[in-house]
Amino acid sequence: MCDKLRELPVDVETDEAGNQWATLPGRSETSVLIGGHLDSVPNGGWLDGSLNLLAGLEILRRLALEGTPELTIRLVDWADEEGSFGHSLLGSSAASGHLDMERARGLVWGDGQGLVEVLASNGVTLEAMPDSARQLAHAAAYLELHIEQGPVLETLGLPLAVVLGTFAVERHAVRFRGQAAHAGSTPMDQRQDAFAAAARLALEVRRSAVTHGGVGTVGRVVTEPGIATAVVGGCQLTVDQRHVEANGVAAMLDEVKRASAVIAGEERVSVEWERLWSIHPIGFDADLIGLAEMAVREVAGTAYLMSSGPVHDAAEIARAGVPSVMLFVQSLRGLSHTKEEDTRVEDIELSVRALDRLTALTIETCRATGGGSGSV
Amino acid sequence: MCDKLRELPVDVETDEAGNQWATLPGRSETSVLIGGHLDSVPNGGWLDGSLNLLAGLEILRRLALEGTPELTIRLVDWADEEGSFGHSLLGSSAASGHLDMERARGLVWGDGQGLVEVLASNGVTLEAMPDSARQLAHAAAYLELHIEQGPVLETLGLPLAVVLGTFAVERHAVRFRGQAAHAGSTPMDQRQDAFAAAARLALEVRRSAVTHGGVGTVGRVVTEPGIATAVVGGCQLTVDQRHVEANGVAAMLDEVKRASAVIAGEERVSVEWERLWSIHPIGFDADLIGLAEMAVREVAGTAYLMSSGPVHDAAEIARAGVPSVMLFVQSLRGLSHTKEEDTRVEDIELSVRALDRLTALTIETCRATGGGSGSV
Repeated sequence: MCDKLRELPVDVETDEAGNQWATLPGRSETSVLIGGHLDSVPNGGWLDGSLNLLAGLEILRRLALEGTPELTIRLVDWADEEGSFGHSLLGSSAASGHLDMERARGLVWGDGQGLVEVLASNGVTLEAMPDSARQLAHAAAYLELHIEQGPVLETLGLPLAVVLGTFAVERHAVRFRGQAAHAGSTPMDQRQDAFAAAARLALEVRRSAVTHGGVGTVGRVVTEPGIATAVVGGCQLTVDQRHVEANGVAAMLDEVKRASAVIAGEERVSVEWERLWSIHPIGFDADLIGLAEMAVREVAGTAYLMSSGPVHDAAEIARAGVPSVMLFVQSLRGLSHTKEEDTRVEDIELSVRALDRLTALTIETCRATGGGSGSV
Repeated sequence: MCDKLRELPVDVETDEAGNQWATLPGRSETSVLIGGHLDSVPNGGWLDGSLNLLAGLEILRRLALEGTPELTIRLVDWADEEGSFGHSLLGSSAASGHLDMERARGLVWGDGQGLVEVLASNGVTLEAMPDSARQLAHAAAYLELHIEQGPVLETLGLPLAVVLGTFAVERHAVRFRGQAAHAGSTPMDQRQDAFAAAARLALEVRRSAVTHGGVGTVGRVVTEPGIATAVVGGCQLTVDQRHVEANGVAAMLDEVKRASAVIAGEERVSVEWERLWSIHPIGFDADLIGLAEMAVREVAGTAYLMSSGPVHDAAEIARAGVPSVMLFVQSLRGLSHTKEEDTRVEDIELSVRALDRLTALTIETCRATGGGSGSV
């Protein structure tokens, strides 16, 4: 990526939060941001997230070839979008002013290093991360292309969609503590089995999501001592719940928390909840949604509008007050966060063309309205 | 341990399976074995298993002080009793001729090293391990002291018990394979969630154990990719089932296997079972049980007889045809395989005195009957 940027007349810098910026200076300081992230989940696929940045790079290239653009165009690679410590959108939440410093300071996984040490070993000081907010000062619009990561567009037979906004998310680490004991000599009625509690809770997370029309996932489970011959004394699991409405996710969380207390009582274990991350539902900018519809219709004929279950950096930038919008391109078999993630090459081409058209339309509109933050 | 042995007139050697032997030569080649193990489970307690060997050491010391004993007395520290790769009683099963070489060759945990490499880095060649059987050639009896690791003796208010034999055990690794997918964009009805299947199976393991009056434990659970934002694509868990009767454990295994197939079908995942280890119920030697009752009654007044849910090296040695017996000493709160494992010091003292008396009675009886394997 850095090599590719070196071919272009752009200024490259890394900000206080570890976000990388490539700036193509325009006639005006007013800027259009194109963003995404290069990091992926462990053993993730090839498109989440590098499609968004590589597409943005080609748009920078096209604009640079045409001479100095009317507005400044900036490409941003947000740091740790996937949330190595369970805190999604780390870099963009720093820039948006929504990084909860106290919670971030306490983030540790298992017996490993804490977030603060890992950041430091990457040259980032937690305390300085919010200073990256300065990057949004002259932003008139934020645009992001992403794979859908779900099965909707494939089911509809459409290559592209305009994203209306992102779901509300509640993400917690839940810890059950029982009593490790010998698997051969501890009668069933005398056990305090932390994994039995976790198993029951996982089924409750699912039941609650189905009831409320949201999604709920137990993705990471760790048992201690974690050997075949001992009853599980401690079990930690992640609970990720999402709903298109804030009330929906709140009801799901409340229901599952109550269930965990009942289960803990019945299993004679203790339970603790720790919020890893949460976000309200975010609606994107109405004017930019209009431009995105136009761009998608030009390129692919039909412009389908949908909300996003996955969260994206665009949600952070939108809640920082920068008008934002996203485009989705179809994912094959709806798969993502796995090696099988894929998209047809012809659809990828359409998506880059749509982002290019959206950028052009955004520059035109911002220039016509005089530019400046919130002007679209 | 080695330092303590150096103070005594014993020959020390490590055999082909990594078992360590300390031999106090007697007037006869016929030997009485006192055994146990020094290894423990990860984060295990201080008594399982070092009590048995340290007690045996003191008995060697007492006998050595009295001059050359009538029979040869041998103390053995069995290698990897706890089964780092899920194969309990590794060293003693090699000596007993019950190490399944083909299965052992394939033992690997997760993405880590295989058993064969780990043995090699400890100077043990898997293929040579069965040669350790020669150690049992002149054995007339095998004696082992162990903490109970369960709550029975504490409930009865007794310090010691004589063990009649060990439970049947079936231990398997179960792998569910579904499809990793994004936690935000994959509708609940389109998921192939390997952890949901594992959670349901764990509850079946428990239900089946309760129904049949055995014990069943899911002790280790690993989720893949194992992150908060992905539906679990793969889940591996251990299932350990025990029953005092062979038929009981067979019924439990059959029931849970059938349940796993039904669950896999409903969850649209695949399921595979791999046997890690199993053992039939083992009954100890009737004559040695009689001597053990005598010894316990002399030392503690009452001799309680019970079977053992935990397996022990004594079970392997018994099934190799060497008359064997065990003593149990009370465990506080019934806990073992955890740091909280403990036993009152006065009970430990009683247990060492009982093992000493049992050894003396065994030597006397073997001498009276002329010694030799199976002569007790």
